[in-house]
Amino acid sequence: MTQASICTIGDEILIGQIVDTNSSHISQALNGLGIKVTRMLSIADEHDAIVEALEGELSLNDIVIVTGGLGPTKDDITKPALARLSGTDSYKTDERQLEIIHKLLSARGLDVLDINLAQASVPDTCEVIPNRLGTAPVMVFRFNEERFGHPATLYSLPGVPFEALGALEDIMEDIKAHNPLSDISHRTIMTYGIAESALAKKIEDWETSLPEDMHLAYLPNPLTGVRLRLSVYGGDKASHESRMEAELDRLRPVLGDLLYSDHDDSLEHCIGTILKEAGLTVSTAESCTGGTISAMFTSIPGSSEYFLGSVTSYANSVKTGVLGVPEEIIMKHGAVSSECVAAMAEGVRRLTGSDYSVATSGIAGPGGGSEEKPVGLVWIGVSSAKGTQTYKMVFKSDRKRNIERFASSALNLLRVKLVNELK
Amino acid sequence: MTQASICTIGDEILIGQIVDTNSSHISQALNGLGIKVTRMLSIADEHDAIVEALEGELSLNDIVIVTGGLGPTKDDITKPALARLSGTDSYKTDERQLEIIHKLLSARGLDVLDINLAQASVPDTCEVIPNRLGTAPVMVFRFNEERFGHPATLYSLPGVPFEALGALEDIMEDIKAHNPLSDISHRTIMTYGIAESALAKKIEDWETSLPEDMHLAYLPNPLTGVRLRLSVYGGDKASHESRMEAELDRLRPVLGDLLYSDHDDSLEHCIGTILKEAGLTVSTAESCTGGTISAMFTSIPGSSEYFLGSVTSYANSVKTGVLGVPEEIIMKHGAVSSECVAAMAEGVRRLTGSDYSVATSGIAGPGGGSEEKPVGLVWIGVSSAKGTQTYKMVFKSDRKRNIERFASSALNLLRVKLVNELK
Repeated sequence: MTQASICTIGDEILIGQIVDTNSSHISQALNGLGIKVTRMLSIADEHDAIVEALEGELSLNDIVIVTGGLGPTKDDITKPALARLSGTDSYKTDERQLEIIHKLLSARGLDVLDINLAQASVPDTCEVIPNRLGTAPVMVFRFNEERFGHPATLYSLPGVPFEALGALEDIMEDIKAHNPLSDISHRTIMTYGIAESALAKKIEDWETSLPEDMHLAYLPNPLTGVRLRLSVYGGDKASHESRMEAELDRLRPVLGDLLYSDHDDSLEHCIGTILKEAGLTVSTAESCTGGTISAMFTSIPGSSEYFLGSVTSYANSVKTGVLGVPEEIIMKHGAVSSECVAAMAEGVRRLTGSDYSVATSGIAGPGGGSEEKPVGLVWIGVSSAKGTQTYKMVFKSDRKRNIERFASSALNLLRVKLVNELK
Repeated sequence: MTQASICTIGDEILIGQIVDTNSSHISQALNGLGIKVTRMLSIADEHDAIVEALEGELSLNDIVIVTGGLGPTKDDITKPALARLSGTDSYKTDERQLEIIHKLLSARGLDVLDINLAQASVPDTCEVIPNRLGTAPVMVFRFNEERFGHPATLYSLPGVPFEALGALEDIMEDIKAHNPLSDISHRTIMTYGIAESALAKKIEDWETSLPEDMHLAYLPNPLTGVRLRLSVYGGDKASHESRMEAELDRLRPVLGDLLYSDHDDSLEHCIGTILKEAGLTVSTAESCTGGTISAMFTSIPGSSEYFLGSVTSYANSVKTGVLGVPEEIIMKHGAVSSECVAAMAEGVRRLTGSDYSVATSGIAGPGGGSEEKPVGLVWIGVSSAKGTQTYKMVFKSDRKRNIERFASSALNLLRVKLVNELK
């Protein structure tokens, strides 16, 4: 089985200033080709560290994909490190990339600077795949068996995520042409509303009875619930898929409505599919989630078919003045109450004319809690012509994670209401 | 200088199903102590791969921090790998962790299962730091000089980000007690509205004149603009900070209002500070950004002091019915127009009574564009009692990134308006 390592270069990752998202996308693409990613490594912008680390990864893997360190500025030193790794100190200019640099910068109304032009210059030991989306080209270094004990290829991609993704498509073609590929099959099952250990107990019999070559993993996540991933490596993809489907058929009745997708779909995507099929619309009224649910809905292409709009009623004056929550409710029960979220959910449904709605009011923290209404408390309301229901939940986390849990819990309650009312 | 490596264990990272965020937080904490993170590595849930990779990292570093693979389920195999690495096959039970497991699960109303209790059992070669937030304890393995050529310590933390962060505080105390610490000083300068290469040209003279021990890095990001990071390693922290401050004083006049923060603050945080100091309020009216700007504002603790609320007017009926955009405007100019965002910005200011407002209407894609109004086009309106301005911008990216650029551009235009009007 072809093995790969993904390396990111840049102090910004090692000092924790940015989170590496490229590796995840590259890994998904390699897995799709049946290539097993064995390691991901981040290394500093230091010449010797880069050369030594890449030698190590090349000796362990058939393919090494490197991102980052190719920018026009002085702190980017991947290129000279790759020159040394490949035993050259001569450079050549790639005319195709030079042309792209001129086109890109003039389209943006920017001057073409010397440091931009220098990006078309690459070590003479590499093949170039031009980068249509940016100024730094993709470099391909092929090493023969003598160097690392096996043939190995290193691909160097730009670090800017948008450009890295574009370059990825190009190198996939090169990888397919140069490597024997086997199959990896994954299937993801999404659950919401059950803790990891309780889920493990619930599906214990099913898990124990899985065939030996099928591997199950649990992936808890506050925004999506616990994901289950079933994997089979090697062999015949088509037969794996029907075998995994059969196992899923046995799992579905065990999970009931805890299962919301048997593919890697988000809650907001699943709700969108249900609404679209039924020709229904939705709106949201958000206090503590501050527009997060609305942003999740509208992250889905085509969501304008069923998502009408949202009101973030952060101030109480917006709850009363825009959503029409009666002032007495806020005075008597407070903004974080069953009565208030019910009125918010009904208010936004009336305001936008949507069929369904969901509303949140809670205390995300870190400040603002009391003994009766602690940080992490949220009231969620869901409403349709068939009625309005409210739910109280308490999470114990920091502001960011509390908001995520409030939002995903609200989406899940809306999903369950939809599934029940559309039965 | 004490050196560290951060390792994450889990197939879910290597197949690209989740993005590792723990390493970034751990790295920030280590850097704060003056420990240099040399490598970050992700490895698969495979016994031999874990043992070999950790041996490699321990031989290169003084400290190795491992996260993940400690869950209660069958796919988590870090613990037996650590037992082998430390030369034991005997386990001991940590009574303090056992007690926490009982407390945590009963507080959540969950049954205490055997697989939960097994989490308090650890290799007898380690010291335990109880995990107050979850069921898997932190394990500390200390290796003497003979094993790896230098004394080395391995910390094993749970992988769930919330628990990993909690455990991090505990191990920092242990690290401080056991290691000689030097200083790393970083200073981050935030810019918005200038491309990386143009910025490099603009500050070229300043960059060239920096002292030799000061390192400058460029970090482009669609949500924040290009960040500049100035770093000095080793030596005396207090003197570095005054030296970096002096360099910043020379940089400020070069950047003018392109610079929005001389610390690592976000646009929404900077705007919040300006509004709070001036006693002013803000609201948003969002079409294409779908609540993203509202969610960015409310991600800041204490934002209820100045953020009143938001309307996501995804459907045109919400633009006219809730925000009061005249129907003629949409019929004559379309929803993506200067006239429409001006009316949206003024409408939401009227509706919420805020002093300032920002509005967006554009085409995030992938569908919905035309020759005249292509995917990536956005109109942004900013409004206050002193007047309403609108701006047109075009980005060429995917839906997610277009929405991010729309939102951050809108925030930046609001920031510039505030700075100018409050002069």
